[in-house]
Amino acid sequence: MQLLRTSDADFEAKFDRVVRDRRESDAQVGRDVSAILNEVRERGDSALVEYTKRFDQHNLSSDEDWSISKEACKAAYDGLDAELREALETAAARIRSYHEGQLPKDRDYTDDIGMRLGARWGAVEAAGLYVPGGRAAYPSSLLMNAIPAKVAGVERLVVTTPTPKGEMNDLVLAAAHIAGVDEMYRVGGAQAVAALAFGTERIARVDVVVGPGNAWVAEAKRQLYGVVGIDMVAGPSEILVIADKDNNPEWLAADLLSQAEHDPTSQSILITDDRGLASQVMDQIDLEFLKLPTAKTAKQSWDDHGLVVLVDSLDEAPALSDRLAAEHVEIATADPEALFGKLRHAGSVFLGKMTPEAVGDYIAGPNHVLPTGRRARFASGLSVLDFMKRTSFIGATEGALKAIGPAAVRLAEAEGLPAHALSISRRLS
Amino acid sequence: MQLLRTSDADFEAKFDRVVRDRRESDAQVGRDVSAILNEVRERGDSALVEYTKRFDQHNLSSDEDWSISKEACKAAYDGLDAELREALETAAARIRSYHEGQLPKDRDYTDDIGMRLGARWGAVEAAGLYVPGGRAAYPSSLLMNAIPAKVAGVERLVVTTPTPKGEMNDLVLAAAHIAGVDEMYRVGGAQAVAALAFGTERIARVDVVVGPGNAWVAEAKRQLYGVVGIDMVAGPSEILVIADKDNNPEWLAADLLSQAEHDPTSQSILITDDRGLASQVMDQIDLEFLKLPTAKTAKQSWDDHGLVVLVDSLDEAPALSDRLAAEHVEIATADPEALFGKLRHAGSVFLGKMTPEAVGDYIAGPNHVLPTGRRARFASGLSVLDFMKRTSFIGATEGALKAIGPAAVRLAEAEGLPAHALSISRRLS
Repeated sequence: MQLLRTSDADFEAKFDRVVRDRRESDAQVGRDVSAILNEVRERGDSALVEYTKRFDQHNLSSDEDWSISKEACKAAYDGLDAELREALETAAARIRSYHEGQLPKDRDYTDDIGMRLGARWGAVEAAGLYVPGGRAAYPSSLLMNAIPAKVAGVERLVVTTPTPKGEMNDLVLAAAHIAGVDEMYRVGGAQAVAALAFGTERIARVDVVVGPGNAWVAEAKRQLYGVVGIDMVAGPSEILVIADKDNNPEWLAADLLSQAEHDPTSQSILITDDRGLASQVMDQIDLEFLKLPTAKTAKQSWDDHGLVVLVDSLDEAPALSDRLAAEHVEIATADPEALFGKLRHAGSVFLGKMTPEAVGDYIAGPNHVLPTGRRARFASGLSVLDFMKRTSFIGATEGALKAIGPAAVRLAEAEGLPAHALSISRRLS
Repeated sequence: MQLLRTSDADFEAKFDRVVRDRRESDAQVGRDVSAILNEVRERGDSALVEYTKRFDQHNLSSDEDWSISKEACKAAYDGLDAELREALETAAARIRSYHEGQLPKDRDYTDDIGMRLGARWGAVEAAGLYVPGGRAAYPSSLLMNAIPAKVAGVERLVVTTPTPKGEMNDLVLAAAHIAGVDEMYRVGGAQAVAALAFGTERIARVDVVVGPGNAWVAEAKRQLYGVVGIDMVAGPSEILVIADKDNNPEWLAADLLSQAEHDPTSQSILITDDRGLASQVMDQIDLEFLKLPTAKTAKQSWDDHGLVVLVDSLDEAPALSDRLAAEHVEIATADPEALFGKLRHAGSVFLGKMTPEAVGDYIAGPNHVLPTGRRARFASGLSVLDFMKRTSFIGATEGALKAIGPAAVRLAEAEGLPAHALSISRRLS
């Protein structure tokens, strides 16, 4: 953990190092993934069988080994503890409602020269969703990725998830039932992403691949960008909390640790103008490590990447926060709106002291798949738009073509493209 | 050129080969580009100097060697032929007007439990635009890429363009003046994309890189996806014309050749139910080759990738067209709306016999940067959204947190994330 003061002489150099720290994967992963993608592309299912045996100790042989049926998902759903089932349903309903409001509107109008112009949105036909296995198998992630796809209108939603030693996660199956997943395959890693992108004998290819995963999965998505659409390159996640002096250190400690407990590479940052609060929060975090079941991961993250920045005034906070362009920004101040108005780069913002980031992870409604690694400078959270595409259209009348065609002919000639010019001038003669 | 009939026994196999044909670059380009990116990342300007000398025979030494001033762009604009200047201004005004209609709306509402939810859109701070040099230096491309960035609200718009042997293109400079480009550097190739993404001593890094280029530029963008935002992976372009029997073969020949003259890897496709029209168009194209100044490129494209598909009924056309998911689709029929309604995957559609594709390249208003290589299945044309990002936000009251917090706590506990649960439960106790 680093404690920096903006008033210190070496602040700029040290803060800049934090901003530039990438916490990301290496070239060896890139080569390994590239080899796996080629194998799956060339050999299809037989490559999946080999990799799944090697990496997941799972034999793909019978239909049940390969896929999880809708009936199995329904059974997992029925078997859930009633309160947990209701919690999942509440989350799903709220996520659905928020994402329905994202559906884009078509355009279709005729301008002053009689030219019809517009754009029409439509869903992709098929989407693939990667769901991690083992400890990181989160039903909330399934809901957050699958529901926007279904709201967008995707007809075929395919999940791939590793089942190490054959083990399945009932919560994930139940979430798949709620979200209306159409197909579910028991493969994971880069090989699963390759199967979704290229297609194999068993798994028909999709148009878009989304979902979280480890470094191999993220790298596979990066390499396959352009072959299929992908949601984004996901890296270790961040929380940045901007807090005034009137905060409960126990609340803020929990907020910071809720990011740190995800992964040793996660990053938790506190910006405050109150030295006393900073000390209290740091002390509280040390206390939490004594009892928190996830202390090992959380402590490693906090020790290696944790950051507390003391500012003279909270007015400094938005600019610092923008440089970090964090995935999650909590504004725990009396007037959160004032700072929010000055903030420019963040995946999602949590306004006020009663809004812990975790409420957004599960149940508020907006997506929890958000840009990480400073990518909020240019990227957005997952939305229905990731599962849709837009077709523009143009309809000219003879009058409209007469009005602007000659200018286009002139430009085509200037660019040395005579067939372009002819295609217009012949219609005007 | 291939002529296929849907009624032939081997149609499916042959058509499938066309759909799968990728016309794209090889692994060697990937390795070359990877090396260039590393050099620019490590050595900055000095790498740019070396590559620019080697690839463009241009020495980067004085400020004038490095960049093109706003004054130089203004002078190029002032020096243009008046009609050409007016054509560029008309195009710019129409492109600006169409893209202003794309600006997304923010959301901000409070739901039935008192939870405030929403999303706020904002522009990226800086965007880089690659403009090819030499023969493919198109002022229309500059307008199509730069204007959406400015409409989105990008403050710093940087152009990189190679100037082989020092040669600049006045039309491109004039277009930069019209579009309001802020900085313009005389570097090209993968090295220019690397400079935009990583930044060098002279060129500050940007957040998004857009613009067309050769295979090296396209591969550089692909490899840097995630380091910066990129518009899309661009490949060879396509036109697909759906025509009924009542068409002028001279018009359609020009339309097909307007794509073929771009590049030998471009693809022009005609789908018609009229054998006579197909023959007339093919004959006309052969005639054009005798006089068209761009015949060499156009003939190679038509010979290698041209395709004529004879259908029994035009009702077959939308499904065939969707499999090709072409960049440009012209519907040259009496009732274009009927087929357009059945079409699902296309970059842009040109409705009716008076709408040649070239009118969209220059002046209609919608963007001419469109998904190629079957990517219209999942990708969209360039828009203001490529230069913007969305920040979601959540604001809970105590009442709202009480209403849904317990469900989130339950889910966090089920996922084995105790700090997540604590961050909510502590605020409820």
